[in-house]
Amino acid sequence: MTASGIETFRGISPAEFFYRNRQMAGFGNPTQALFTTIRELVENSLDSCEDAGVLPLIQIQISTESPTTCKITVSDNGTGVPDDKVPEAFARVLYGSKYSSRQRRGTFGLGVTMSVLYGQITTDSPALIHSRTAESGGTKFSLYIDVEKNTPIVESSYPQQRKQQGTTVSITLNADLKRARDRIVEYLRLTGISTPHAKISLNINEVEHMSFGGHIHTLPPFPTIALPHPRAADLELLRRLVASRIEMPLHDFLVESFQQLGHKTAERFLSFIHMDPKKTVGNLDRSELSYLSSSLRKYDEFGRPSSECLSPIGKDALHSAFGSEYKSTIVTYASRGPLEWDGFPYIIEGVLAVGDAFEKSDTPTLFRFANRVPLLYDTSDDVFTKVMKRVSWARYGIQESNQVALFMHFCSTRVPYSAAGKQSISSVGCIESEILAIYRDLGRRLKKISERKRRATQSQRRYREFSRTFKQLTKFSSDVAGAEVVPDTRKMVQDLFEVIGDV
Amino acid sequence: MTASGIETFRGISPAEFFYRNRQMAGFGNPTQALFTTIRELVENSLDSCEDAGVLPLIQIQISTESPTTCKITVSDNGTGVPDDKVPEAFARVLYGSKYSSRQRRGTFGLGVTMSVLYGQITTDSPALIHSRTAESGGTKFSLYIDVEKNTPIVESSYPQQRKQQGTTVSITLNADLKRARDRIVEYLRLTGISTPHAKISLNINEVEHMSFGGHIHTLPPFPTIALPHPRAADLELLRRLVASRIEMPLHDFLVESFQQLGHKTAERFLSFIHMDPKKTVGNLDRSELSYLSSSLRKYDEFGRPSSECLSPIGKDALHSAFGSEYKSTIVTYASRGPLEWDGFPYIIEGVLAVGDAFEKSDTPTLFRFANRVPLLYDTSDDVFTKVMKRVSWARYGIQESNQVALFMHFCSTRVPYSAAGKQSISSVGCIESEILAIYRDLGRRLKKISERKRRATQSQRRYREFSRTFKQLTKFSSDVAGAEVVPDTRKMVQDLFEVIGDV
Repeated sequence: MTASGIETFRGISPAEFFYRNRQMAGFGNPTQALFTTIRELVENSLDSCEDAGVLPLIQIQISTESPTTCKITVSDNGTGVPDDKVPEAFARVLYGSKYSSRQRRGTFGLGVTMSVLYGQITTDSPALIHSRTAESGGTKFSLYIDVEKNTPIVESSYPQQRKQQGTTVSITLNADLKRARDRIVEYLRLTGISTPHAKISLNINEVEHMSFGGHIHTLPPFPTIALPHPRAADLELLRRLVASRIEMPLHDFLVESFQQLGHKTAERFLSFIHMDPKKTVGNLDRSELSYLSSSLRKYDEFGRPSSECLSPIGKDALHSAFGSEYKSTIVTYASRGPLEWDGFPYIIEGVLAVGDAFEKSDTPTLFRFANRVPLLYDTSDDVFTKVMKRVSWARYGIQESNQVALFMHFCSTRVPYSAAGKQSISSVGCIESEILAIYRDLGRRLKKISERKRRATQSQRRYREFSRTFKQLTKFSSDVAGAEVVPDTRKMVQDLFEVIGDV
Repeated sequence: MTASGIETFRGISPAEFFYRNRQMAGFGNPTQALFTTIRELVENSLDSCEDAGVLPLIQIQISTESPTTCKITVSDNGTGVPDDKVPEAFARVLYGSKYSSRQRRGTFGLGVTMSVLYGQITTDSPALIHSRTAESGGTKFSLYIDVEKNTPIVESSYPQQRKQQGTTVSITLNADLKRARDRIVEYLRLTGISTPHAKISLNINEVEHMSFGGHIHTLPPFPTIALPHPRAADLELLRRLVASRIEMPLHDFLVESFQQLGHKTAERFLSFIHMDPKKTVGNLDRSELSYLSSSLRKYDEFGRPSSECLSPIGKDALHSAFGSEYKSTIVTYASRGPLEWDGFPYIIEGVLAVGDAFEKSDTPTLFRFANRVPLLYDTSDDVFTKVMKRVSWARYGIQESNQVALFMHFCSTRVPYSAAGKQSISSVGCIESEILAIYRDLGRRLKKISERKRRATQSQRRYREFSRTFKQLTKFSSDVAGAEVVPDTRKMVQDLFEVIGDV
């Protein structure tokens, strides 16, 4: 402890970093901590069920243990976690199975471990994990985390049969259930829309029972791991790829390492940047690698990224989910992509809905999703919110008395979250423009539908009016002519309107 | 690469985490990266100069190397970094000298290393460090970082004389100078206000030369390292403190480990929670430690935290800085604290200023600072911004035509930043209420000053009016009375107004 002069230097573990700055990971206070814990456990469960290729069945139980403490238990029918991986998967920060290049909900290997850490420092309770994989009958673990070293402490582990494959996690933590309740319910309701094939049940203190989702009964296609897009080739990535294929000639290296880079493209690209396709990549020097990296990132003839690593919700699933959750009079869907930001493929899709369930306002109520996860906090700094303010919604006929909502979904192999708590998407230039485009697209669609509705109403009115007048006229003519039978004008008017094409 | 089923588990280094999520640390794009690099280097320099106990002299040089690349060089007269610490201090994420309990600008051991990393992956350039401590003549380093391992790679290091103690760092990186320029200038101008004893010069491409700060010429008192406040004693901290004083009886342990916990308070506290003051802390079991932790956090008789670990800017320094930077007609100052959030001491201070330099608006223009660092990005999610929207400024006489600004400074041993990029303070309940209180306080002060000004103007007018009328009256009376000399009324009116007390 120096009073002045040079301080002691030292390193800290990532667990220590997030222990000191837990608000960055969504654990700023007992309300947020409870919400984040449920969110992280549910996300892990959903990812795991999709890995297992089953329709997710997720049970959440919240029990109040004391006025300031809750026990959360989340149980799923996913893949389960192998015994030898359980300690690190749950009690080591930045450890996980989700660092590959396909769309996942979790990405950091951070969230659940933070819940374990928060539970431990606020209530001294270990995390309880009961998991069964296809290979085992089930094992129960009781875990703490050594924050200074970022390593798991296994308090106990023993075999215990579990009915079926899957994982059950219990965490006891300081929590403000009263304040967090509505957010949790909202989160699960929206998860039911973004993952409409999952069934989630919530049980609060054996008093409240709710269920969410289950709107459709088929799994979406499984997103596959994709090779990186050439535009992702910063020097760090390029060097790693080279290290794994050190003996290859440059041409083959490119074809094997990247998507959208077949033989023809590789040839064209290498001749354009004047590099020898036969040179072994292990022999490229620093400056050649640097040149290759910047060329890969700049060359604009590479195709759009493949979308197989992505899992958008899709028009039909969104329409079904909406039908069940909201009684909307108009639902219109649009999507953009696959595109890439810094080489990471992404798709943006959105729904604009009109219905009594939404608030009256001259701007749509915004619901945000990233990789099928609803984002509820930090609204104002999110890119979806920012761009929404730039659109003149009045141009699309949205006025103060309207009840309009926007459901926007960004899905990508890498979501540019602004903080580790994954509550908002940061502003990336190219993403902003695409969001703007999709907003306008949805706006135009809404206007067209409204216009069509307005015209339909108008022409109905005209038809009624004409029918009435025509009938009177016919009756009057018949009277004047002294005809005994007034002809039925209905068929005549119908025919007439068919000929003039309904205006 | 599994198509389905269980994925491969693995850990990643914190460098890898921030490489993958660089937008979280303020490196989302070339504009932000340039800004953040300058900001982090300047903050490090300021901290280091204050450690050395000298008035900071900081030189910043930005040179455009190519349309997309800049070289940044920042040089200071601080303590310098010892040779054996340079590699890790600059090329290992989560390594630093700033993990102690006093107010610092830097806190994470993250920022500068991220600049090194960003420079390396975008331009393949090493970071160049030239540092001299009190003990050495100077050494030059050329460094890269091994991202996967989070360890430094020393490309070269050799002795080279440096004129005086201090550090010079050069980083070459992808940068958008055109877009970042104004932010950088704004940042430095505001730094000149929040650290008015520092002199900072900026040189852009040898064409633009600017200087900032230097408004006062005395160092603020050096913030000392403080013992933790009892309210910070979560189980993790308590266990660490126990481990370092394992043989001590509980009573002495408390007195030695915490601030605001003298012998009398310790006695009262232990008798209140019924714990044996003589018990050796090493013998406390899990549940006793847990009980002690929650009692320390709940007991409300502990004093407010000491403020010696904090370094608020202060009324006088702020007034001087304002006098030089803005021509404000009214400047009023208020502060709150020392208080604590989760046991971390903090002070909030603020200035409300009226002047032509500010925008016309019915709400004040807000300038935010944390530990003397201006915060320029992520405004809308900041606690200062959020609370500002809850105040009815009209009540304090602020209308659309007013030009009012608020300069708010939060200083603490731990700032609850919402992300590692340190651009906004997250919402902590107790901090919110204090901010609300200080806003209202400033509002009332403004109203009082405006009221006083209004009254002063009014009474001047009354005085002038009365003087005129009285003079005419006297002249008229003199005329009527046929007096030859009209008496001088000035002195009479003056005396009269003194007697009736100037209203």
